[in-house]
Amino acid sequence: MPAPACKALVFDVFGTVVDWRTCVINEAKDAAGVRGEGVDWGRFADEWRREGYLVPITEIVMGRRPYEEVERLLEATLGALLDRLGVTLATEEARRLASVWRRLDPWPDARRGLERLRADFVLAPLSNGSFALLTEMAKRAGLPWDCVISTELFGAYKPDPRTYLGAARLLGLEPEELMLVAAHPADLRAAAASGLRTAYVPRPNEWGPGAPAPADPDPDFDVVATDFEALADRLGPSGHSAT
Amino acid sequence: MPAPACKALVFDVFGTVVDWRTCVINEAKDAAGVRGEGVDWGRFADEWRREGYLVPITEIVMGRRPYEEVERLLEATLGALLDRLGVTLATEEARRLASVWRRLDPWPDARRGLERLRADFVLAPLSNGSFALLTEMAKRAGLPWDCVISTELFGAYKPDPRTYLGAARLLGLEPEELMLVAAHPADLRAAAASGLRTAYVPRPNEWGPGAPAPADPDPDFDVVATDFEALADRLGPSGHSAT
Repeated sequence: MPAPACKALVFDVFGTVVDWRTCVINEAKDAAGVRGEGVDWGRFADEWRREGYLVPITEIVMGRRPYEEVERLLEATLGALLDRLGVTLATEEARRLASVWRRLDPWPDARRGLERLRADFVLAPLSNGSFALLTEMAKRAGLPWDCVISTELFGAYKPDPRTYLGAARLLGLEPEELMLVAAHPADLRAAAASGLRTAYVPRPNEWGPGAPAPADPDPDFDVVATDFEALADRLGPSGHSAT
Repeated sequence: MPAPACKALVFDVFGTVVDWRTCVINEAKDAAGVRGEGVDWGRFADEWRREGYLVPITEIVMGRRPYEEVERLLEATLGALLDRLGVTLATEEARRLASVWRRLDPWPDARRGLERLRADFVLAPLSNGSFALLTEMAKRAGLPWDCVISTELFGAYKPDPRTYLGAARLLGLEPEELMLVAAHPADLRAAAASGLRTAYVPRPNEWGPGAPAPADPDPDFDVVATDFEALADRLGPSGHSAT
């Protein structure tokens, strides 16, 4: 029996669809103004992403700390990071900066690729960003999602299997009718373990120009593409069955 | 202190955004073909809507029966209704007809009104239709939602207060920053009781040409508009504060 056709694509967002690093650097620099001269804002962005997001979320997924809303996690870390840099922001400035994750710009290929993919598939984010964050981001950036799926809806974070299976259930699909598109091999491997198909789109600039190259694609990933336009080439009507 | 601005509009869907009756009649008539000659398909549509949807959902909201997925409720009623009419459909035909609720067309003003409102507000359905149903309907009909909110996300049905408050919470808004747009006064009154603003858009043709006129607007509704274009006139930049 042939595998059922893939009907929907869900996308990791931070790093895969949007360039969080550049946007965080720019807003932080603007917020600090002269107070931030000499600060390495690239390092700030990387540390915020690690300490305010990757570390606590990993702890939550591993059951070592209770579930907490992602924007609270990011906000809670910001103060300490700024202190470490010796930068003082007014409460309102800090609050505004904490919400920068709602105002991230897509990679240059993202919108066009999504518009093309939209003709053949249901498209949704599947992100650890909150439902409100993802909705606001999509409206501002013009991301043509058919619906918004946040892991908040499952009270869990990726790579918890409940998130991948939850997305399939919400869309009324079998796991193998759903494909995760992500720049992060660990996310893709967890999705595959839950039965989803996988598309790896490496984003070599996610961590800035000097960062180590992304991991080599796992030969088990169903599709590898350099960007969303290339993904549309592979998955569009002509390449629809190319998995 | 002035009331906070309204930031998002959530819409009842069946009857308010889409003309379920005409679409159900047409698909049922097509499915039955010559087997359905002489059948009053308008009455069939009305009975399906009442017995497969309004009655069981009311029972669930009142706690008289356990929560069950809305498409299962509709599908479970269809067989008995067709039996009553003496119409026999093949399993596949019946299954296809049961999913007609995913393929409903919007009222003529809906898409244009939503496109205009989208410039000023976050737009989402807030419907008892399932998440998958609402997503498929929006994609097919070109409804420009910013995200899809189904009451399925709250394991409850409107007019359960958890649905209105759940929508506000998901969007990160206070209830009074959210407005429900609906053709049904009972839905609006329940939303108002949870602190939401309300816009009444009567749809005199929802139950067909011979149906009784819709209820007079409650003077407590914040806005009354004849259709979504008129709603955009009222709520657009010029009428933004008109509540």
